[in-house]
Amino acid sequence: MTGVLDRRDLRARVQQALDAFLLEHRAALDAMGPELPPVADALVAYVAGGKRMRPGFCFWGCLGAGGADTDALVTAAASLELFQACAIVHDDVMDGSDTRRGRPAVHRAFAALHRDAGWSGDEEAFGTGAAILIGDLALSWSDEMLVTSGLAGPTVLRVFSQMRTDVVGGQYLDLVSQASGAGTVAAALRVAHWKAAKYTVERPLHLGAAIAEADPVVYAAYSAYGLPLGEAFQLRDDVLGVYGDPEVTGKPAGDDLREGKRTALVAMALETASPAQQDLVRRHLGDPDLDAAGVEALRDVLLDTGAVDRVERMIDERLEQALAALDTAPLAPEATEVLRELATAATARAH
Amino acid sequence: MTGVLDRRDLRARVQQALDAFLLEHRAALDAMGPELPPVADALVAYVAGGKRMRPGFCFWGCLGAGGADTDALVTAAASLELFQACAIVHDDVMDGSDTRRGRPAVHRAFAALHRDAGWSGDEEAFGTGAAILIGDLALSWSDEMLVTSGLAGPTVLRVFSQMRTDVVGGQYLDLVSQASGAGTVAAALRVAHWKAAKYTVERPLHLGAAIAEADPVVYAAYSAYGLPLGEAFQLRDDVLGVYGDPEVTGKPAGDDLREGKRTALVAMALETASPAQQDLVRRHLGDPDLDAAGVEALRDVLLDTGAVDRVERMIDERLEQALAALDTAPLAPEATEVLRELATAATARAH
Repeated sequence: MTGVLDRRDLRARVQQALDAFLLEHRAALDAMGPELPPVADALVAYVAGGKRMRPGFCFWGCLGAGGADTDALVTAAASLELFQACAIVHDDVMDGSDTRRGRPAVHRAFAALHRDAGWSGDEEAFGTGAAILIGDLALSWSDEMLVTSGLAGPTVLRVFSQMRTDVVGGQYLDLVSQASGAGTVAAALRVAHWKAAKYTVERPLHLGAAIAEADPVVYAAYSAYGLPLGEAFQLRDDVLGVYGDPEVTGKPAGDDLREGKRTALVAMALETASPAQQDLVRRHLGDPDLDAAGVEALRDVLLDTGAVDRVERMIDERLEQALAALDTAPLAPEATEVLRELATAATARAH
Repeated sequence: MTGVLDRRDLRARVQQALDAFLLEHRAALDAMGPELPPVADALVAYVAGGKRMRPGFCFWGCLGAGGADTDALVTAAASLELFQACAIVHDDVMDGSDTRRGRPAVHRAFAALHRDAGWSGDEEAFGTGAAILIGDLALSWSDEMLVTSGLAGPTVLRVFSQMRTDVVGGQYLDLVSQASGAGTVAAALRVAHWKAAKYTVERPLHLGAAIAEADPVVYAAYSAYGLPLGEAFQLRDDVLGVYGDPEVTGKPAGDDLREGKRTALVAMALETASPAQQDLVRRHLGDPDLDAAGVEALRDVLLDTGAVDRVERMIDERLEQALAALDTAPLAPEATEVLRELATAATARAH
């Protein structure tokens, strides 16, 4: 995936835009007191690690619609990384995740700061509070970065706002779905629709289309490509969460199983599991202390029930749909090529 | 205070603007699924209860600078209530507060929803997650409401962005100050500067000034009025947090003492407290189970050390400074009158 997102030097330019924005905006914050620098530092560290998927869709969504490759476009596209910083930092608090991309999650890092400073009170509560604030800052700054790009006309802001509402709604659906234990394939796919398909792919493409002042037919093409592709991304993520290489995912092996995530993969396994297999899932899924043997046992259930094969087929179908949509999409050829490569690379089996 | 904020029917118009915005914007959210309505309901309920202080400063800040009284201005001003909703909902999570304005805090309300639904997992974690998301939504929507007012030119957006950064920084300073137990008067006043003086008074006035495209001299006058006044607000709030009538504050009597807030009032008492008094504060302040007798004992220390008198004098001095700034401010006469009344009403002793 690295290759295709490096075309037009995009990843380096996104990083430059983020560096410039953060350098300028942290000055006012840092000036508030010697306690403040860790706050902006956390955002700087976070945005250095992104894959640039959403900026990529925004950038190529604009070029595909005939828009120009400008630094202002890169700035607008990069603002999505700050938005994603908010989503991730808050998500890690909600999920109680310990790590992100192989490093401590922000709330854990600030709990450690509290501990190292020898302060009084609850270090976990301090970490949570700091992470909530850092997410809020990222959310505010993402919007500011988009606006200061100079490209944020009414349509652009409308798409951006829809995206923000989608994410909150999708996250809430996810919370409810995990809590209520609905655990059906349909419930998991509904969450994937909002959190992955709309947020990660369709809305960034639409944001680019809006910047290019595209015709409605372009928006429709991006939906036809983006929605199935985004679901495929989520399904690939579900598989990687169970079988992925920790070196690549940045999380310990089987971490999704320890967190007890009710993914489509798990739901599918439960649909056809034998009573003994169901019992095994009930006992092990969501056990924070699950050991390697437990992880292996759960992996076997997912394989033996045929759930992994079914999810792989679902990914293939959705990828095909997305690629077929590109065949008839009225887009600039270079963008079509990039979107095709992005779709293939981001859904490829990593194992 | 009700009276002065009702001039030009402001409070009713702010409510109308919020109702119209929320009705329109909740539609997309509610359409995402039958689980969603409680999310927007929480915001609707929250914004119904505000004092409209920040919208008031924005509105009169604009009129004071020669701006026109339009519905667009009211919409822009009302967006500050949605921003405040984010600040409060997230603040209550960070402080672990149970109540807000006499009702359960949002995170507690969603923990109850989890319990009533008989869902599995940790109800507290669900409540926290929901409150984080609802705050994020309020933050996103506040910005959207400001933009859709049609008055959000570059200067307006810059002031709004500065305000958002101030609040995050101020809240973080507050977290650190509570955790590190610095507990000095200076530390408490620094937090008050960012969280109350800039956020509650100066920035809303500047937002109004920006909407009116005011001259720099108006911004300076608003700072000269707003910064001391905002500190006075915070100091009054500190006193009310200890001695206020629960009917008026919406919180149980002595709640700030149970939460262990390191206010300027407490810091001042500790400066002159006898060893026995210091010991009493150490034992009781921050005890979540503090009973009425304990509250009374702490109140006596604050009175006997002269801290309450000193804080009252500080409030008077700051109010005087604010009013003196108005005497020479180049503002429309009606606005000057309103700002004078607002200052007096919001710093008045309620006991």
